Amino acid sequence: MSSEKIYIFDTSLRDGEQVPGCKLRKEQKLAIAEQLDYFGVDIIEAGFPISSPGDFEAVREVAAIVKNATVCGLSRAVMKDIEVAGQAVKGAKRPRIHTGIGTSDNHILFKLNTTRKDILERAVAAVRYAKTFVEDVEFYAEDAGRTDPEYLARVCEAVIEAGATVLNIPDTTGYCLPHEYGDKIAYLKANVKGIHKAILSTHCHNDLGMATANSIAGVENGARQVECTINGIGERAGNTSLEEVVMIIKQRFGGTYHTDIKTPMLKSMSLLVSETMGMPVQANKAIVGANAFAHSSGIHQDGVIKQRDTYEIMNPADVGVDQSSIILTARSGRAALAYRFKELGHNLTKDALDVAYIHFLELADRQKEVVDDDLEVLYQERIYSLT
Amino acid sequence: MSSEKIYIFDTSLRDGEQVPGCKLRKEQKLAIAEQLDYFGVDIIEAGFPISSPGDFEAVREVAAIVKNATVCGLSRAVMKDIEVAGQAVKGAKRPRIHTGIGTSDNHILFKLNTTRKDILERAVAAVRYAKTFVEDVEFYAEDAGRTDPEYLARVCEAVIEAGATVLNIPDTTGYCLPHEYGDKIAYLKANVKGIHKAILSTHCHNDLGMATANSIAGVENGARQVECTINGIGERAGNTSLEEVVMIIKQRFGGTYHTDIKTPMLKSMSLLVSETMGMPVQANKAIVGANAFAHSSGIHQDGVIKQRDTYEIMNPADVGVDQSSIILTARSGRAALAYRFKELGHNLTKDALDVAYIHFLELADRQKEVVDDDLEVLYQERIYSLT
Repeated sequence: MSSEKIYIFDTSLRDGEQVPGCKLRKEQKLAIAEQLDYFGVDIIEAGFPISSPGDFEAVREVAAIVKNATVCGLSRAVMKDIEVAGQAVKGAKRPRIHTGIGTSDNHILFKLNTTRKDILERAVAAVRYAKTFVEDVEFYAEDAGRTDPEYLARVCEAVIEAGATVLNIPDTTGYCLPHEYGDKIAYLKANVKGIHKAILSTHCHNDLGMATANSIAGVENGARQVECTINGIGERAGNTSLEEVVMIIKQRFGGTYHTDIKTPMLKSMSLLVSETMGMPVQANKAIVGANAFAHSSGIHQDGVIKQRDTYEIMNPADVGVDQSSIILTARSGRAALAYRFKELGHNLTKDALDVAYIHFLELADRQKEVVDDDLEVLYQERIYSLT
Repeated sequence: MSSEKIYIFDTSLRDGEQVPGCKLRKEQKLAIAEQLDYFGVDIIEAGFPISSPGDFEAVREVAAIVKNATVCGLSRAVMKDIEVAGQAVKGAKRPRIHTGIGTSDNHILFKLNTTRKDILERAVAAVRYAKTFVEDVEFYAEDAGRTDPEYLARVCEAVIEAGATVLNIPDTTGYCLPHEYGDKIAYLKANVKGIHKAILSTHCHNDLGMATANSIAGVENGARQVECTINGIGERAGNTSLEEVVMIIKQRFGGTYHTDIKTPMLKSMSLLVSETMGMPVQANKAIVGANAFAHSSGIHQDGVIKQRDTYEIMNPADVGVDQSSIILTARSGRAALAYRFKELGHNLTKDALDVAYIHFLELADRQKEVVDDDLEVLYQERIYSLT
């Protein structure tokens, strides 16, 4: 059985860029879009064209330079929005309009002050109108995470009938647990007439720290597109992390699913987005954090030295990290110390190592990390005379 | 039916502190331990006493000052380790020794170069020896995430028989998917004789971004203790985030489970640990990130202004964030602009708002964020004369 492709829809330039402090100049947006294209992203959501003249122009220029990926523009289910989005993406090789509306009762009653019937009609009208500009129309059912499943299925059926090619089922508020989100996707797969004509897409927010797990539960239940961002940037606690989803699919679903992402570019894409947007990535971020492949405890260092996969389930080179680093602290054991001395060219005898280890612990209790220079000094002052 | 308590085991001072750059001076460890105790953590893992004289002393002093929480010291299944851990925690009101050994074939064959039978015997001997120092002995089956379930069940049975009060089932390498980890806990609940005499504990790493989801899957399948850290710090990509687990239990399992954590302290605990350890938290971190409750897109701002829970599933005050902030950027809509002007004391007419919005968009396209001072200037220069 050949493995099924999972489409990666990157919204770093839309959901990511709308975050406080992340706004990009047009040249920056273009530079990132070009890299995303080369990186192997299938769809680049380049912006929300109606939101400002600057964003319209940026989406238009992204559309013009991207060579392989589909270029997508966001719009509300409002005719003027859709028209402007259509104009912005029309120069793309593969243009897509992403339109939609809130479908949860919370959104329908309190935000939009209307009825389910009216929302369904507006959804269909929006998709129909978008189809007059492009063939590829994605529909989002905002707050699908809290939408009644039966009504959600009716909306999906109607927009597929109207020509939607992709159905985005966003957990807008980051409320779902993985089995709930997975069940929602499975329900739609089973209960929407014509579902084979469209691709189901996940779009999960991370308010409870569940965005990645929810997206993967979506894939396991039939979604074939994942919306995500580099470093998990996005509204509030952010969106699903592209790097996490891609590496889970690679490491845990190989043979069943695959993506076309060039994983050795993950680390450099993370740095590019983080530096351009001024959004630092915390050291303990999965896959792309500075410490993601660093082993510090003595027990772990000993294990890694004996056999890499004792504590590593990924090859750091697969995500573009040159090598996992062993950092010496007061928690490091003898094995790590001996290993580091060896790398510095000093093969210590057991007795010399015993002496060195005592001095090392004193040093490590005084300072946070012990670096190579410290070890050189320790060796020259305390060990050299013993050998 | 009354709700069941989930015990929160904080290992910020052990798994967190062993990370590169996170080493604390003793006074800092004591200050954090005191706050953790007041915060409502049930168990404080204060360190790994055998690892260095400094850490032994720190654990001993934490044990002396903590008033309510259990104080726990880590050890390998090595007699000297256990003895030193026992000495370090003996002054605690509620002392615990946490001892254990690798149980996956990967660890048994390559790291420990031995057999399953030998590991089982060492596990039992370690627990028996620990019981000579304290009543409360937690056993960890390192790399349980990759351990054969049948063998894991036999180990659990044997250590319960030897007196273990808590069984820690670590996903040491962050390899599991939520349903896999949940199934593992369910299997142990169903297949370990005497399991009712011990508490099952989760200890999940975040290498694939799944630590929180795995911990929750553990709870849903019978675990009643969650090991976690403030801000998710810990080895490599870190440990399970305390704040995420606590808020998921509060928001999604109210009535079924509860913790004793004082949630309005979450934000200040996050700041305390982040600042003391010098480990910044990224802006898009769930619950405690700077942006976790910030709404920037026009669509979202409009929704939040109309009804808080359109885009918010938590009350920011519940986690110690005074109020969710609306930040104005080029993606902000008219409603957000009008709202902010109103907060500044200016009630704009529809016509005045139209004019203000055009100037605002020009400004927002030039600069990343528009702050109150910018709006004041805009109002004085462009709007005041109109009103």
